[in-house]
Amino acid sequence: MLRCSTKVLLTAGLLLSTALATTTVRAQTDLTKMQANASDWVMPTGTYDNHRYSALDQINTSNVGKLQVAWTFSTGVLRGHEGGPLVVGDVMYVNAPFPNTVFALDLNNDGKILWKYEPQQDPNVIPVMCCDTVNRGVAYGDGKIFLHQADTSLVALDAKTGKVVWSVKTDDPSKGATGTDAPMVVGDKVFVGVSGGEFGVRGWLAAYDVKDGHQVWRAYSEGTDKDLLVDPEKTTDLGKPIGADSSLKTWKGDQWKIGGGDTWGWYSYDPKLNLIYYGSGNPSTWNPKQRPGDNKWSMTIFARDPDTGMAKWVYQMTPHDQWDYDGVNEMILADLTIDGQQVPALVHFDRNGLAYVLNRDTGALISASKYDPAVNWTTGVDMDKSSPNYGRPTVVQQYSTEAGGEDVNTKGICPAALGTKDEQPSTFDPQTNLFYVPTNHVCMDYEPYRVSYTAGQPYVGATLSMYPAPGGTNMGNFIAFDASTGKIVWSDPEQFSVWSGALSTAGGVVFYGTLEGYLKAVDAKTGKELYSFKTPSGIIGNVMTYMHDGKQYVAVLSGVGGWAGIGLAAGLTDPHAGLGAVGGYAALNSYTELGGTLTVFALPQS
Amino acid sequence: MLRCSTKVLLTAGLLLSTALATTTVRAQTDLTKMQANASDWVMPTGTYDNHRYSALDQINTSNVGKLQVAWTFSTGVLRGHEGGPLVVGDVMYVNAPFPNTVFALDLNNDGKILWKYEPQQDPNVIPVMCCDTVNRGVAYGDGKIFLHQADTSLVALDAKTGKVVWSVKTDDPSKGATGTDAPMVVGDKVFVGVSGGEFGVRGWLAAYDVKDGHQVWRAYSEGTDKDLLVDPEKTTDLGKPIGADSSLKTWKGDQWKIGGGDTWGWYSYDPKLNLIYYGSGNPSTWNPKQRPGDNKWSMTIFARDPDTGMAKWVYQMTPHDQWDYDGVNEMILADLTIDGQQVPALVHFDRNGLAYVLNRDTGALISASKYDPAVNWTTGVDMDKSSPNYGRPTVVQQYSTEAGGEDVNTKGICPAALGTKDEQPSTFDPQTNLFYVPTNHVCMDYEPYRVSYTAGQPYVGATLSMYPAPGGTNMGNFIAFDASTGKIVWSDPEQFSVWSGALSTAGGVVFYGTLEGYLKAVDAKTGKELYSFKTPSGIIGNVMTYMHDGKQYVAVLSGVGGWAGIGLAAGLTDPHAGLGAVGGYAALNSYTELGGTLTVFALPQS
Repeated sequence: MLRCSTKVLLTAGLLLSTALATTTVRAQTDLTKMQANASDWVMPTGTYDNHRYSALDQINTSNVGKLQVAWTFSTGVLRGHEGGPLVVGDVMYVNAPFPNTVFALDLNNDGKILWKYEPQQDPNVIPVMCCDTVNRGVAYGDGKIFLHQADTSLVALDAKTGKVVWSVKTDDPSKGATGTDAPMVVGDKVFVGVSGGEFGVRGWLAAYDVKDGHQVWRAYSEGTDKDLLVDPEKTTDLGKPIGADSSLKTWKGDQWKIGGGDTWGWYSYDPKLNLIYYGSGNPSTWNPKQRPGDNKWSMTIFARDPDTGMAKWVYQMTPHDQWDYDGVNEMILADLTIDGQQVPALVHFDRNGLAYVLNRDTGALISASKYDPAVNWTTGVDMDKSSPNYGRPTVVQQYSTEAGGEDVNTKGICPAALGTKDEQPSTFDPQTNLFYVPTNHVCMDYEPYRVSYTAGQPYVGATLSMYPAPGGTNMGNFIAFDASTGKIVWSDPEQFSVWSGALSTAGGVVFYGTLEGYLKAVDAKTGKELYSFKTPSGIIGNVMTYMHDGKQYVAVLSGVGGWAGIGLAAGLTDPHAGLGAVGGYAALNSYTELGGTLTVFALPQS
Repeated sequence: MLRCSTKVLLTAGLLLSTALATTTVRAQTDLTKMQANASDWVMPTGTYDNHRYSALDQINTSNVGKLQVAWTFSTGVLRGHEGGPLVVGDVMYVNAPFPNTVFALDLNNDGKILWKYEPQQDPNVIPVMCCDTVNRGVAYGDGKIFLHQADTSLVALDAKTGKVVWSVKTDDPSKGATGTDAPMVVGDKVFVGVSGGEFGVRGWLAAYDVKDGHQVWRAYSEGTDKDLLVDPEKTTDLGKPIGADSSLKTWKGDQWKIGGGDTWGWYSYDPKLNLIYYGSGNPSTWNPKQRPGDNKWSMTIFARDPDTGMAKWVYQMTPHDQWDYDGVNEMILADLTIDGQQVPALVHFDRNGLAYVLNRDTGALISASKYDPAVNWTTGVDMDKSSPNYGRPTVVQQYSTEAGGEDVNTKGICPAALGTKDEQPSTFDPQTNLFYVPTNHVCMDYEPYRVSYTAGQPYVGATLSMYPAPGGTNMGNFIAFDASTGKIVWSDPEQFSVWSGALSTAGGVVFYGTLEGYLKAVDAKTGKELYSFKTPSGIIGNVMTYMHDGKQYVAVLSGVGGWAGIGLAAGLTDPHAGLGAVGGYAALNSYTELGGTLTVFALPQS
């Protein structure tokens, strides 16, 4: 019973034996349909394809300069506010970093609080959150709001009342596992991953039933084929079957059990292909000498069947990582014309500084281009299909921390560990066919050291220091990127990393935030700044837009923190603390203070 | 050497022997002159006369509806943000509740942080702060910024660098004394008082030298004539000498030593009369049976010589307080025409619900009028000069908690302990000759009980519950009051207490904030709402205005808390906790969350 008529839907309540299946289908139908309505913003990524593009055009290049603040809302929580709100009908859902308070706000009443959910979480989870106490948002589906708490509780709240419908524990924070990701709902399942690469947490993506929270499947990033949910014959890597024990063969001993490959980034979904996409993070530890081999499937793009979890294809971007270039950044699903061919593309701006374009159906690699000229650790990906290194990046030995060895400080590596881009999501504008990418322009010195594993203790294995890329003082750029040519079309320099998710709109305006706290609007075609406003705190949240009562609004969370802002967020003064991020970002102290605030913008009454 | 020419000023640096005196005079001259410049806002009260009126009129009744947010700034501190910023030239100074961070913000650069001072204070002071961890602002003078920290350190910071020039301890927080007040600078002295009426802290006002922080004088609210700094023959009370031992005679035994009368409100100054004015708070404990007598000089308006501290006159508003009607609210110095006579008036909206008008030169009582019709504990002040009760309020026995006695719950007393108005300051508009008063419209049940004193422990002696005044649900009104007639001219009801300080302007617009978080602009003549904006959190800060680069700005701190917001601020769930305030204000939870944010408004570019 995979399809049902309206009549069946209406009578579902009477047909008890079919009620579950019916409602399941309706949930999927609803969410797919709802995201087509540009008035709402029903998922953290805007739409399943992760475009973060809105068809709304009331705010456009000619009037965005007149934008003003419509209303504001403090979350009552300090530290880094990643993610952003959802809008479903008249209600906005917004959540905060630890303790992960969730609010339902009434759009008919300047954000009056309809309900509030404040989890009681053990604060001992805070020290095992590597990069501030962030959370990237809640998901909506099946009349519920799904929150993945810091303590790895996945909680389903009644969207109308905020009451807990069910709650399940997805992992063990006493071993360093934490929840920071925004769940994604597809049909009758809600998908979540896990954070903890700096604690040796073995990564996984799991599907839970939206009705009762039972686990439907769980696919690990490393381990046996069964644990991986791969078929050695049918799951492919660059077009070839991955074969048996594809992961185990690339690790020494049991290192894979504490091998990282965490899954805390963004998830996307192609309803036609019925595939979900996500990336895995760094292999643990950061000291490459301690984990010889390719460390599969860390640093890998996965395409999986959402119903079974089985992987259709995989592609490892950074085999045997030596720089902490997690592969978790968003997968943007866009149909592009490349060399005259229509391609069902997956575009991914990786931490390692390469923008990957793959065929999202087959996993075929189409291109991998540097999206910051500063990237120096690789000369690029070997695109020669006959080469044994096909699809692998060619590493520049000078910047190989493996070659440098333990207790040797390898200097001048670009990008830094936080990547040319981290979790801050890009946007794709189907009008310009350009990708707008918030980037870091930061390099690093990296010194690996031997570290022993103790469950729940930091398992980092390297000390870093980070600083602006050579030739300037700007630590970030907001760029427009043409994935069909692999070229940067324009680039707006920013003093600090652009750690805010971008939004493109049919009005020809692209929005993003800065660590100093500015919300900026730029012309999608030229990058020219059209509007700028200083919000209460640095922005690491993702800009979104919605329509209410015929008026378009743009909203963003400010609240400095995250990895780039960890110095401010955690009150660190040691320039080498905070996984090396503090030094280069210390100047942020002159611009902004902690504080979680939602700022909602609109055009003035005409 | 009380006057000096410009030439002397310019050469003062060379004349070492006269340098101190010269600079002193300059400081006084500067501050008096500076406050005449409406572009700046050089003291917490705007001007010495506490008018909180600005001559700026760029924003006026016809355009205020177009006001928009220019920029914002998070203080990085949660809980209640009373007070407001200063503007001196291109720099804004703003401070936060505990830990009392002070920021200097660059007005030329959207509030970029020029410097930040973050005191290291023992957090044990927090439990002895009765009514949230508030601070009402910093003072400017002599090139310094003066901060009275929660831990009673009075700190002088270099206004240019934020470096500590000197720091002195004014009292002992281990006994419950805390600093919450905004200092006032007059000439070469900075004046501060103390909080701690709920801990039996004996009140005082003290003058410290702006140069080096040495104490010049200290005048207690209770005790010997020497401690009081009164002259039994020359200091008057309603025109008569107060006589010897005026305070000691009104207490039983040594109760005056733990007798409260704290001095945490606003201070004002009349340069012509060379008098400073302030009020003292409740006698300790709240249980009146434990302290027979008038409890002088609690609940008293003082007029003192700023140079010597000697009191010229005193007037006790609420002898033998039975309701916690602290007398610390601001004294507004206005020259009024009353019954055809020009009067150098002092106007004071007391917690007890009466608006007092006195001759500020002589201390003569002109009138005392209810400024909320709900006030029921008194029928008014005896104005018969021949009466032995002249100047005393006539208490309605039904609402006398003394008459009710210990462990008896006296019900229906209006106003509640937080008064018809608390510290939230009024404004006087010399154009309309009206006072705009943010009020509470709240009543209470009050049950005194016997309490024993232990230094540093709560010494409250009564349990309260508070609720809206009968006949409606609104817990506040924003009113226009004509002090020459004692009449309310108009009254705008508000759902909650108006706990924000008001601002009147030459543009005919009066501003105030609400506990829900709205900044409102109303027509000074009619009270008609002309503009409203929802700031990130509830407003208990004071609205101010300034001009920068030819543009008028209006600024206010939001950050819910204070006594009315203590339930939210301290996370209380017991409706009788927080000195009784929580119950009536619990609905605030539906409107706002904690968070300290400065919001700065301006008209759009025309």
